[in-house]
Amino acid sequence: MEAEIITVGTEIILGSIINTNSVFLSKKLMEIGIETHYHTSVDDDYKRLESVMKIALDRSDIVILTGGLGPTDDDLTKEAVANVINKPLVLDINMQEHLKNYFAYSNRKMTDNNLKQAMKPSGAEFIPNPKGTAPGIFIKLGDKKIILMPGPPKELEPMFENYVIDLIKDDFNIVVKSINTSGIGESSLETELKSLDIYMPDFTITTYASSEYVEIKVIGRGLDLDKLNETSDMIVKIIESKIGNFIFGYDNKSLAETLLDSLKIKGFKMAVCESCTGGNISKKLTSIEGASKVFDRGIITYSNKSKIDELNVNPSIIKNFGVVSQEVAYAMAKGLLEKTKANLVISTTGYAGPDEDSSNTGLVYICIMNENNHKVYEMNFPGDRKAIIERATNFALTKSLHFINNN
Amino acid sequence: MEAEIITVGTEIILGSIINTNSVFLSKKLMEIGIETHYHTSVDDDYKRLESVMKIALDRSDIVILTGGLGPTDDDLTKEAVANVINKPLVLDINMQEHLKNYFAYSNRKMTDNNLKQAMKPSGAEFIPNPKGTAPGIFIKLGDKKIILMPGPPKELEPMFENYVIDLIKDDFNIVVKSINTSGIGESSLETELKSLDIYMPDFTITTYASSEYVEIKVIGRGLDLDKLNETSDMIVKIIESKIGNFIFGYDNKSLAETLLDSLKIKGFKMAVCESCTGGNISKKLTSIEGASKVFDRGIITYSNKSKIDELNVNPSIIKNFGVVSQEVAYAMAKGLLEKTKANLVISTTGYAGPDEDSSNTGLVYICIMNENNHKVYEMNFPGDRKAIIERATNFALTKSLHFINNN
Repeated sequence: MEAEIITVGTEIILGSIINTNSVFLSKKLMEIGIETHYHTSVDDDYKRLESVMKIALDRSDIVILTGGLGPTDDDLTKEAVANVINKPLVLDINMQEHLKNYFAYSNRKMTDNNLKQAMKPSGAEFIPNPKGTAPGIFIKLGDKKIILMPGPPKELEPMFENYVIDLIKDDFNIVVKSINTSGIGESSLETELKSLDIYMPDFTITTYASSEYVEIKVIGRGLDLDKLNETSDMIVKIIESKIGNFIFGYDNKSLAETLLDSLKIKGFKMAVCESCTGGNISKKLTSIEGASKVFDRGIITYSNKSKIDELNVNPSIIKNFGVVSQEVAYAMAKGLLEKTKANLVISTTGYAGPDEDSSNTGLVYICIMNENNHKVYEMNFPGDRKAIIERATNFALTKSLHFINNN
Repeated sequence: MEAEIITVGTEIILGSIINTNSVFLSKKLMEIGIETHYHTSVDDDYKRLESVMKIALDRSDIVILTGGLGPTDDDLTKEAVANVINKPLVLDINMQEHLKNYFAYSNRKMTDNNLKQAMKPSGAEFIPNPKGTAPGIFIKLGDKKIILMPGPPKELEPMFENYVIDLIKDDFNIVVKSINTSGIGESSLETELKSLDIYMPDFTITTYASSEYVEIKVIGRGLDLDKLNETSDMIVKIIESKIGNFIFGYDNKSLAETLLDSLKIKGFKMAVCESCTGGNISKKLTSIEGASKVFDRGIITYSNKSKIDELNVNPSIIKNFGVVSQEVAYAMAKGLLEKTKANLVISTTGYAGPDEDSSNTGLVYICIMNENNHKVYEMNFPGDRKAIIERATNFALTKSLHFINNN
């Protein structure tokens, strides 16, 4: 069963609003085992709407249209669909009564336009809309199913969950497992996955790169849910055995959240001192709910003087080794550890660029330290200023996670 | 000239990522006078990609495809387009050399996969990608134009602005002036602009709200470039006369950059202490090139103890007034000013939430201070944790800009 989502509205086509309905519907469809292959958006134009409807009916089993069901003249979805499937629009007396009562009850004036909403293509069923005046519409056309829903997410989402799922879902299941990796690029990851030569019918293994990490998704579809879960667990284990070093978590949990959770379980406190990352590590950690239970403080020592004042870095170290050096990264972490007695301390110093001497740009030293142990990393991160800051941040979080798991 | 935008990627079709590229491209196309009528998204499937490409070429003059230009096997956009237009893919020796150098320079291993990125349909032109390895592709096919761009917004956006606009725009001229406002909502701003009753043929005045600020765009289209510039300058002056108080800058310059530039001109240094904003203010400032000339340090005092240790806040103030209070905001700023002797200091303390007592969520105190003067703001920011942090950050930057201009 293949689905297509058509969102109707000039405001989407002009970029005035973001098409979140397609995101919501695709996710929900996947959860009930229905694959979506196309999203189409079209402006409020009758002819164009007809043409995309014809194309969709031709190539998809389930066509879900959202938007254009309102009472105004540029709401044309129902009219265009009725025309394409060659059914006249007929007035539904029950819906007319329902709308009259709705308007009377909510003390609003019902205009003639609103009567449009009591019309449906002959043979179609209305889908209740508890959150607004525009009912949805369900049409069965041979093997195909057509669903029309109102555009506002607060009307569409409950309508989909409460009524539409039952109208369209098949009786097979879907299982999705996500594995989050860090420290390996998408193409190397794909090469590694290919070398595993996993082939299971009904299973797909894909990678998705975000700015923060690369995610592996294991997706299985079939009738037997227990079997699907068993097989997907087995696939995850095989992947872990090959690239376990690069895995930091599962199921869409960010690196920062995974680190905070690991520290919380151990009852640990952490502190951060940042030079080149400029607050990005602290910001990522504190944007997570409940960060205050774990995150004690962050010190962004941008100037040399602040490194001396705040972290008690010996000026002669800066003078002898340069402010971007493993010695300074170590001294910063040491200073912060002594001051805070935290269970985990991270420091960064580097060139985020652009620099006069561009050969230095991207050189970053990162120190991770606790009372008994420390590690200093020298890294050369590619990219522009933002990319270097982001890469250094994610690297520091990844290595911190390894550090607390091994120390 | 009618455009169609095709976004390629299973992750869009599955709802894993939001299709922001269509929003960006539709807005930009509108600015240069090109109407968009269709958005299509399709998963990484060769046959389906071919079919949507055929449909698009049939109904649109300009077809812009994004995504699927990467090095991996499921990146198929170029292959499908080449097949539809019936041109073989050929290796471009110059691009091959360029990619080899890029990988060597950034110290990354070039795999055979990456060579795919040096291939283009015969007769096509490459479009430079300064932010990544996948070049864009431009194809002219009779009256039609086809553009292929990489999917990541940070690669696509500069590529579009710097190269694609020139390739697709008609031979009339476009002048765009941007005015950045802060402290006024989009709908109030629209009301103000309407009251000015500016009507110039060939000119459009629109507003765009981002998470950081609301931008006014004055867009003129016509043959006579001098005339366009003259008229747009006049319109900008009229707007300034009405809402000058809310204007913080021009031409896509961020609030943080505007603040740093104003401080740099005065030879000022600044320092920040953040509680609820958790490093977001420091991160925004230090992500700007050359921030180190102005930004001395940031201290993220998340725990009470850190406020006492780092900023010399008197524990009795925290005890008597609560840690989220104007007294603590003031004491934090005062402590940092005394320690750093900076010319501008910002402090924040508040509830970013979610909190047990949700009536407090969003309450934030912000203090802005120099040697002679200070201001404390009590604000209630709406939204979730991320929105509150972002709003408090932008408010603090806006008020700092006003403060240094008036003190």
